[in-house]
Amino acid sequence: MTDTSRIWTAALIVVGDEILSGRTHDKNIAQVATWLGVQGIRLREVRVVPDDMAAIIEAVNALRARNDYLFTTGGIGPTHDDITVDAVAEALGVPVVIHPEAEAMLTRYYETRGGINPARLRMARVPEGADLIPNRLSGAPGIQVGNVFLMAGVPGITAQMLDGLTGTLEGGAPLLSATVGCWVAESEIADLLRETEKTHEGCQIGSYPFFREGRVGANFVIRSTDQTVLDAVAQVLIDGLAALGREAVPGGI
Amino acid sequence: MTDTSRIWTAALIVVGDEILSGRTHDKNIAQVATWLGVQGIRLREVRVVPDDMAAIIEAVNALRARNDYLFTTGGIGPTHDDITVDAVAEALGVPVVIHPEAEAMLTRYYETRGGINPARLRMARVPEGADLIPNRLSGAPGIQVGNVFLMAGVPGITAQMLDGLTGTLEGGAPLLSATVGCWVAESEIADLLRETEKTHEGCQIGSYPFFREGRVGANFVIRSTDQTVLDAVAQVLIDGLAALGREAVPGGI
Repeated sequence: MTDTSRIWTAALIVVGDEILSGRTHDKNIAQVATWLGVQGIRLREVRVVPDDMAAIIEAVNALRARNDYLFTTGGIGPTHDDITVDAVAEALGVPVVIHPEAEAMLTRYYETRGGINPARLRMARVPEGADLIPNRLSGAPGIQVGNVFLMAGVPGITAQMLDGLTGTLEGGAPLLSATVGCWVAESEIADLLRETEKTHEGCQIGSYPFFREGRVGANFVIRSTDQTVLDAVAQVLIDGLAALGREAVPGGI
Repeated sequence: MTDTSRIWTAALIVVGDEILSGRTHDKNIAQVATWLGVQGIRLREVRVVPDDMAAIIEAVNALRARNDYLFTTGGIGPTHDDITVDAVAEALGVPVVIHPEAEAMLTRYYETRGGINPARLRMARVPEGADLIPNRLSGAPGIQVGNVFLMAGVPGITAQMLDGLTGTLEGGAPLLSATVGCWVAESEIADLLRETEKTHEGCQIGSYPFFREGRVGANFVIRSTDQTVLDAVAQVLIDGLAALGREAVPGGI
């Protein structure tokens, strides 16, 4: 049963020199954030850290303590730069062990792919006491230990692992959102946004400006766990924009 | 003059509920990371935090102390949810003041755009003692205060501000990289990667696997500040792959 009053939070640690070098554009932040929202869990903070034991350990201990869930992406592969399992184990103060079920999965998977080898066996290493998160795309599973979930860095594999977790985590009421767009400079209607948010309990309004086709516009995103609040606030914005001679675009631009 | 032995580091704070909700895919991490690399500065850590004073203040104080430079993106616009200036000022223990030059710039910019108003004037607010970072795209400047650089959330505007800063920050030797790709499972050549990195001073090798056209492959990214080391290590990998009957793709796949 879901407690809809309590707010459940998660943090994400993206492990990867390739993100910090700018070489790779991260796709996991948005993917994990969107998935969490559907589970009724709010992503509160993300940290991108290098492939460095001390940096990962610090982030793991800071974030797992103050969130209901902690996710990591990256660093659970077979190569020398994959150290997330070791870092999480050290952060939790437990040894790294071979998970027999993971070893069996990997042995099966690689039977027709050149066979298991020491590097591939690395992907069966888990912090002691961990459970596996299934992954249909490759032989290597994700790992859950306590409230920490270790996922792959390759977004397609992370998607499989998230799919395997769907509906299994306790969460609250999903945060709903409604968007109202307008071809207006946000600075022209800042008062309307502030007043509308202030006068409506339990809603937040974000203002996201853009430049497109040589014109300025903005999307105003209303967030609430209550659909009736969302609808009411959206209407207030639409009417308020009309009163200022501006046509709103329900659903956003 | 540039000290090429010292490693200069930076951190980035991405401020924005829209990133944490998954609604917006961040583009600033890769943009800032790439720009920093060219300046000879390494991005050591990124944090994505909500539009929340306490969260921004904590991240600012943690990261500005242990890095040469701290960049922030987002939250410096004209609306009620733009609180980065206030949070940085509080983190630094200084008041927020109107910067006369910023006020003049904004007044000029909005002369032909409906005129200045209180919301637009918000964009002239800076932590006391701050300098401005020019921005040709919109009237609102970026802000530098101490080793903290406040940039826009809109990537196109951030690009303008980075352009304005190019060559002005002290840095070390840029980290160079060379990529060798191969249609091989990284788990087949993990030993080659580990040995090659171990036997070559001052180089790191990252292994980035992918699934494409139904085949597994990986790009191996060698990083060093020394081009001769890069070239040597790339050749060692190419030869090592050949010895395993695998054809390398110099430059990556």
